[in-house]
Amino acid sequence: MKKKVVTIGGGTGSFMLLSGLKEYPIELSAIVSMADDGGSSGVHRDELGVLPPGDIRQCLVALSDSPKIMRKLMSYRFTEGGLDGHSFGNLFLSALEKVTGDFSSAVREASGILQVQGNVIPVTKNDTHLYAKLKNGKMIRGENAINVNFNVEKVGIERIYLEPVAQANPEAVKKIREADLVIIGPGNHYCSIIPNLLVRGIPEALRKTQARIVYNCNLVNKWGHTNNFSLDDYVDALHGFIGKPVIDFVTYNTRRPGKVLLERYQEQESGSIVTFDEAARSKRSYHIVKGDLLSATFHAAKPGDKVAATRSLIRHDSKKLAKMLMFLLEIGEYEGILKKIV
Amino acid sequence: MKKKVVTIGGGTGSFMLLSGLKEYPIELSAIVSMADDGGSSGVHRDELGVLPPGDIRQCLVALSDSPKIMRKLMSYRFTEGGLDGHSFGNLFLSALEKVTGDFSSAVREASGILQVQGNVIPVTKNDTHLYAKLKNGKMIRGENAINVNFNVEKVGIERIYLEPVAQANPEAVKKIREADLVIIGPGNHYCSIIPNLLVRGIPEALRKTQARIVYNCNLVNKWGHTNNFSLDDYVDALHGFIGKPVIDFVTYNTRRPGKVLLERYQEQESGSIVTFDEAARSKRSYHIVKGDLLSATFHAAKPGDKVAATRSLIRHDSKKLAKMLMFLLEIGEYEGILKKIV
Repeated sequence: MKKKVVTIGGGTGSFMLLSGLKEYPIELSAIVSMADDGGSSGVHRDELGVLPPGDIRQCLVALSDSPKIMRKLMSYRFTEGGLDGHSFGNLFLSALEKVTGDFSSAVREASGILQVQGNVIPVTKNDTHLYAKLKNGKMIRGENAINVNFNVEKVGIERIYLEPVAQANPEAVKKIREADLVIIGPGNHYCSIIPNLLVRGIPEALRKTQARIVYNCNLVNKWGHTNNFSLDDYVDALHGFIGKPVIDFVTYNTRRPGKVLLERYQEQESGSIVTFDEAARSKRSYHIVKGDLLSATFHAAKPGDKVAATRSLIRHDSKKLAKMLMFLLEIGEYEGILKKIV
Repeated sequence: MKKKVVTIGGGTGSFMLLSGLKEYPIELSAIVSMADDGGSSGVHRDELGVLPPGDIRQCLVALSDSPKIMRKLMSYRFTEGGLDGHSFGNLFLSALEKVTGDFSSAVREASGILQVQGNVIPVTKNDTHLYAKLKNGKMIRGENAINVNFNVEKVGIERIYLEPVAQANPEAVKKIREADLVIIGPGNHYCSIIPNLLVRGIPEALRKTQARIVYNCNLVNKWGHTNNFSLDDYVDALHGFIGKPVIDFVTYNTRRPGKVLLERYQEQESGSIVTFDEAARSKRSYHIVKGDLLSATFHAAKPGDKVAATRSLIRHDSKKLAKMLMFLLEIGEYEGILKKIV
């Protein structure tokens, strides 16, 4: 029987992760954040009253076995006229939601049409929005607004929550409970990862599952959001939302990006590389697994993609990361080794 | 070897015709008018600079063997926000044209994705527009403008032409030349049928083919366009553009529409049932084949379909028409019968 692997995330982080994992003979389920309200997804939410298709679309494309042209089409963005900025894939999912009557059916039908290998599961079926209450009392509504607000961390987030309260999609809970391996991240901390943990039923499922849990720590801090976060700060934040220290492994990239990439990155994002204190090992309930996980490709923004400027240029390599994760999946098979490492 | 059947038309007429013919074991090729510039297609031409997808889309859907949900999706129209009136299928073809780089490749890829049984062939690859010069000297530009102008026939059309001049798609010429049966119509006379005959190379192919040629005469005259046209007026007009009397058979519906339908029709279109003079038989170079071809279904306009008001409510039944056409395809097998009928 194939081992069951569940990913939790959203956005380009999930796309990268799933692209690598899909090459392995595992049963793959992608649980996807539904707080997206920016760009093309935002327009669809506002104007069509549909659930946000953007993050789901990226996961469907990552897991699609359909001809390359169909995958290219799903990622195509119109760049002219009244359709400027619209992602064709988002139009596809929104039209399917209208035709089938609900978003879950739309995702199921799209999975069939796109010959998706695996399951793409919205974390919730509820129409909900992300809110941040800052320490100065100011409220910010919507994932997109939080994402582009560079003062979030300067002021500090007092509380981040979903409204209305969202209940977990029962399928997501089931997959987490039955998994052999649950992989959290990488992805935008406040806008892609945390929104999954804010959904009622998800933390509980993570506390109860027998699965090994791996967290793919981000490579760089997002300026204004997670300035000077160490690896441990990220894990502590996640454990805070989950309510129990459940993470077994944290993957960490040891390869430094090239000078050109670092400079380019600093020009556009001004974030810093995530680090951690080697000496603090004994205080951790999790093991940090180190290796070269860096993508050597420069990821340029696509024309028409208006949110790309807020996305990472320094990224994981999907193949390298998948290889490490599959090693961590198998590590349980060899008890002696596991004990030695942890 | 399967017999080769070619249809020439556009719009809902072709959709109906192909839906019926696709049930038969023939090699089917649909040649489609490219003069469409109304509704969603018009917006795409203007804003995206692509060829008009609307008529091609309808033929692809008619011949698609893909799951029902995909066919429903291709015919879905958005009804809200900035996407109001946009056909998803048109967005699909336009995005494919952008991704593949040209319209013919887009149609070919779409045929694969939609599991199209048969060939859907744009009559021309040129970006061209339909013009009408009225007898009072007034010029009307664009199929849509001609379609909705109810004074076209009152004043009278002096000349109808394409500009720039369009050359036939070589594949269309090849299919006509190699066909066993060529079927013209039904469809909007000036806006779907004639625009095919205005393309250079199409009349010549029709003059040279050995195929039997059938014309499906419209059931009703379009008010303002073809008021009081008899069946013979339609055929004469076609022969005028083709340059030679090539039509062998004309199909004619003998079943009168019900009172309710007729009233509803007159409310909305004020057209009249097409008739012909039984006594004039000896003057004709073609044989009129009569039978019940009427659809019993009331065709309501879809929400968001802004051009539906100009479309026929009195329609052919696709099954009945296909059955008669397949009889006319086989009639050549029995020489004695053919001579007796003709």
